[in-house]
Order: sequence, then C-alpha cells, then structure tokens
Amino acid sequence: MRVAYETMVKEFARVLEKKGFTAQDAQDAAVIFAQNSLAGVYSHGLNRFPRVVSYLEKGEIDPNVRATCEMSSGVMERWDGHRGFGPLNAKRAMDRACEIAKEHGVGLVALGNNNHWMRGGTYGWLAADNGCIGICWSNTMPNMPAWGAKDRKIGNNPLIMAVPRSNGCHALIDCAVSQFSYGKIEDCRLRGVQLPVPGGYDTKGQLTTDPAEIEKTWRVLPMGYWKGSGLSIVLDLIATVLTNGNSVQKIGTFGDEVGLTQIMIAIDPSKFNTTEETDAIVDAIIADVKSSEPVNEQTNVMYPGEPELRNISENKEQGIPVIEEVWQSVLDM
Amino acid sequence: MRVAYETMVKEFARVLEKKGFTAQDAQDAAVIFAQNSLAGVYSHGLNRFPRVVSYLEKGEIDPNVRATCEMSSGVMERWDGHRGFGPLNAKRAMDRACEIAKEHGVGLVALGNNNHWMRGGTYGWLAADNGCIGICWSNTMPNMPAWGAKDRKIGNNPLIMAVPRSNGCHALIDCAVSQFSYGKIEDCRLRGVQLPVPGGYDTKGQLTTDPAEIEKTWRVLPMGYWKGSGLSIVLDLIATVLTNGNSVQKIGTFGDEVGLTQIMIAIDPSKFNTTEETDAIVDAIIADVKSSEPVNEQTNVMYPGEPELRNISENKEQGIPVIEEVWQSVLDM
Repeated sequence: MRVAYETMVKEFARVLEKKGFTAQDAQDAAVIFAQNSLAGVYSHGLNRFPRVVSYLEKGEIDPNVRATCEMSSGVMERWDGHRGFGPLNAKRAMDRACEIAKEHGVGLVALGNNNHWMRGGTYGWLAADNGCIGICWSNTMPNMPAWGAKDRKIGNNPLIMAVPRSNGCHALIDCAVSQFSYGKIEDCRLRGVQLPVPGGYDTKGQLTTDPAEIEKTWRVLPMGYWKGSGLSIVLDLIATVLTNGNSVQKIGTFGDEVGLTQIMIAIDPSKFNTTEETDAIVDAIIADVKSSEPVNEQTNVMYPGEPELRNISENKEQGIPVIEEVWQSVLDM
Repeated sequence: MRVAYETMVKEFARVLEKKGFTAQDAQDAAVIFAQNSLAGVYSHGLNRFPRVVSYLEKGEIDPNVRATCEMSSGVMERWDGHRGFGPLNAKRAMDRACEIAKEHGVGLVALGNNNHWMRGGTYGWLAADNGCIGICWSNTMPNMPAWGAKDRKIGNNPLIMAVPRSNGCHALIDCAVSQFSYGKIEDCRLRGVQLPVPGGYDTKGQLTTDPAEIEKTWRVLPMGYWKGSGLSIVLDLIATVLTNGNSVQKIGTFGDEVGLTQIMIAIDPSKFNTTEETDAIVDAIIADVKSSEPVNEQTNVMYPGEPELRNISENKEQGIPVIEEVWQSVLDM
C-alpha cells in the first residue's frame, strides 16, 4: 500500500494538533516525520510515529516545551532543549545556525538536554535547503563498545554533513559511527539474511556477519574498527563540552534515550561563491565520481544522498510505501 | 639510535634556514617535523624531511611564498596557499582560525592551493594548544575507489578533530577515511605480515588482508566500506566549495600531490565554560571509556590521542628513535 506524501503530512499534523501541539508546530513536526518516510527512512518516519504519540499521551514529551538559548557568544549559542520534542528543537537549532551563518559566515548552536531527533539527515538537509553547508551530530545512549572493550560505553553518535545544490539534489552523508544501525541488524535477522560485511562479535568474540549472533552479545562494530570508536568519543567530547550537557555516559544513567546532546553548524558558501559557482563545483565532483568504472554491470556508483533522492522521487510519484496496520492506526488516532 | 627532541628541532631548523627559510619560519617548520617524529608518526617527521629538502633544492617549494587571505566574510576567510610550504601555510591558517574563534566563538579558514600538510593531527593539536576545539581536513590526490567502483577517483582525505585539556593531554583523532594508509600497507608488506583487518581488494575482486595483493590492485578499502566513501566525497565537496580551489579530481591532473585544499575550523569553548569545567567534562568521559572491560588482559582501552601521548612521553624521556642513515643524512646537509 502507498500513501501520498501530502496525505501523510496532513494526517500526522491532525494527530499532533489533537495531542497538544500548536497548528504550526504540528505542521513542522508532521513534515519532518513524513519527509523521513519520503526519503525511504521508514524506521524514523511513519513506523516511529505511533511510539512518539504514545510518549505524548503518557506525558513523557510535553508538546509545549521549547528549547531556549542559555548563552551566546559571537556566532555560537548554547541552548537547553528542556527535554522537549526532539525534532522541533533540533529544527529550530539548525534554523538558527543558518540564520547566524547568513550574517557571519558560520553559525553554531550547541543544543543540550534534547530528545531524540529521529533522522539526523533531516537537519543537514534543512541547512542545505537554506543554501548552507550543514554539519551536525548527536550523541546517543551507550550502545557500542570502545575499540578493545567488551562492554558498551560509547555511542554510535550519527554524524551528518550536507552540501547544498540549487536544484535541491543536495549531497548528504548521514552516518552513525557504528558499521550498522540496530534497526539494520534486527531487520536482517528477521529476514534471515547475513549482514553484507561483519557488523559485530559473536559469543566466542569473533567478528561475524550473523545478525542473530550479534544480538546475543550486542558487541556491535564501530565503522572502520578503531576509527569509528575514536570518532565516537571525540564527537561526544565536543558536544558535551559545548553544551555542558549530557555525555553518552550520563545518558546511560537515565534508563531511556533522553536528554541528548546535539551540535548544529551551518556555513554559508554564498559569502564567497555565487550559486552558479557552488553548483558548478558540486556538479563537477559528482559527475567525476559517477564516471567511475563500476565493479560490475549491476552496480551504479552513487554520490552521498543519491539513494535518498531516488526514494524521494519514486515515493513522490507513486506514493510512500506503508505497512497497512501502522497507517491504519494513525488514521484511527 | 635515539635523538633528543631539541637536537632534532635544532638540526631541522639549521638545514631549513640554509635552504632559504627565514629564521622564524625555519624554527616553526622544524618544530612541526620534529613533533611528528616525537608523536611516533615517523613517516611524516624525520623520514619525510630529506624529501622535503630535495623539493626545496629543486625549487619545487619556494620557502618565501606565503598563503594570502583572498576573501573574508564574518568569521570565515578564504586563503590562497600559492603552493607554498604546506605545513607553514596550514599552521598559519589554523592559528588564524583560533584567533577568530577567540574573538567570535568560531573561526574558519578555507585554504586552497596549498601543498601537503604532512600530518593533519599537527593542526588539531595546534588548535587544542590554543585552548580551542579544532576540526580540520585536507583533500588528497585520487587514491581510493568510491564504493562500488574499481578505479580510484576519491581521496582518503584525512579528518581531524581535537579537544583541548589544560594539562596538554588533548584528545585527538586523526583519521584518513581509508581503512589503512598507503604507508601502513607498504610497511606490513615489507615486514611480511597481514593487515589486522581487510584493507582492500585482491586481483579477483575479493577483500583481503594481504598487503601484497592490495598493492597489485591499489583498490584500498574506505573505512566502514560505503561510509568512508561517502565521507570522502562530502569532505572534498565542502573543501572545494569553500576555497573554490582544487578538488580531488583536479589534483589528479597535476601529476604530483600538490595544490591541495584544506579546511581549518576552531571553536573556543572558553566562551561558555571555565577551563576547569571543560577539563572536568573531558576527564569524566575519558575516565568512563578507560573503565571499559577490555577484550583480554593484554588490551588497554585507550582514548583518541592516547597512543600519541604515550609516544611523546617515551620519546621525550628516551629520545626519538631514528633510522641512523636518515639522521646522518640530515646532519650532513
């Protein structure tokens, strides 16, 4: 079953308004969830929506709490998210970073004590839609062992970088610093398939592509082994220093994955280039990468963000694929 | 054989001054090379020094060319390195980024048309010594296939992030986005050992840990497979857009690895925290990581930068290990 993007936005907005959001906030949050499904990241779109609604119903998310700016110095602001609604706080923080960048070249908002932002790519994309280069990351609860360790003390802290193109086909990388997300490992286990490359350790301490074995230990592998481990730690350090918020370790004491720390950096390339110049630079690099000789005839060498853009194009045309029961549950809300 | 750090600096400075550097530039450049050896990165310290001297002798590096600021907007500057001496241009660019950060919170210098900066960690460390968080990267010549490709069209563009500690034991990650450097692959081949994890493809297109097989194809593996490939492309995009300098593709047309593009970002945490607060945050995160349960009794779980700090400590105390012929060649210069 497929549902039109506009219908999905409308239904999400209707439900969120009913659960206490202002009309504008309901619309903004609905767009974020629907765009995640549109881009093919269903786990953080429709499929996550009912859980968020249940948090609203239980009072675990207050729809009227907004992040506030606590400190400001030059092009840098420190915000407290007050554990409000993660995606809206994050959107406002990146919007503000872009606003500062448009004035001063670069803007940075350090957002502490926020809730889960869903898909990090949303905020990179947002910066690019504003004509800015976006760099952002979030920490997470401890969900990965550091290199050389057995127990999970570091986060798979997603790092996002986006580069704008005036045609809207932005280049974007959205990468957790684990080799695979927890969702991907579970998905492969449910479908009875192996991971394409090793994603963690089995009970004997050996690297494995078997998702069921990894789920027994939850010793997931950092991307690039020691490299992803080091990146994870430094991303957590920078984010926690700039917010004086919650580190991965601290988040691990909360029971749930709440009170996260996020960094939003926007850089405005129009200070130095015309739009045409930036487009020409980006187009040339992408064209060169795409002219690579593929490993086989079935392979299409893609630039970062291209798979999502293909999903967006297909799902806009044909509607967004949905799990019927989940969609029906939203209609019934 | 071991040589005292101070002796190495003095000898490097003597040679560089003889080859045309001003006394100050010779001293600054000597410190960069000697510190790389001190930190255990011998490939970019003493062992690289004779090659750099040969470039000076052949006139391929002009010791008197300095990067100049071409454009400036708010906290962001675009510099042209005029293919001068890479490490000194890069040092000046990061020094300037820190200067801007101390005034406005964040500073960014986009340095185009520079030469090889040697070890990227140098400039992250420099920012941290200035009390700033440093984020920097460089592009390279095309030396890695994009994910899904056979031919080398992307760079292993090193990404560096550093977090300052007032005791000088900064946290720092310096990571090329390939799984292994070319030097590491060669080193393992020469020593007749396998890489610890797969580092590239053999002639049959299979992943391998055999350095000799990888050297036959030079299809080196991005860190985290598709993730490192995507990161490489986006880092090149951002750097080339902000400098309007040379992309990886363009550098590939030069014959040598020259005219590189580098981004220096400095962020001053003292705008929001006292030094004691920043130290306490960093210490707590590092202590937590180090309290991990190691995979075996021989393993010491380390934080990013700790291995280099151990080398620095050991080499300061016992002298820097040198290959005798290389050291003698410097003394003879």
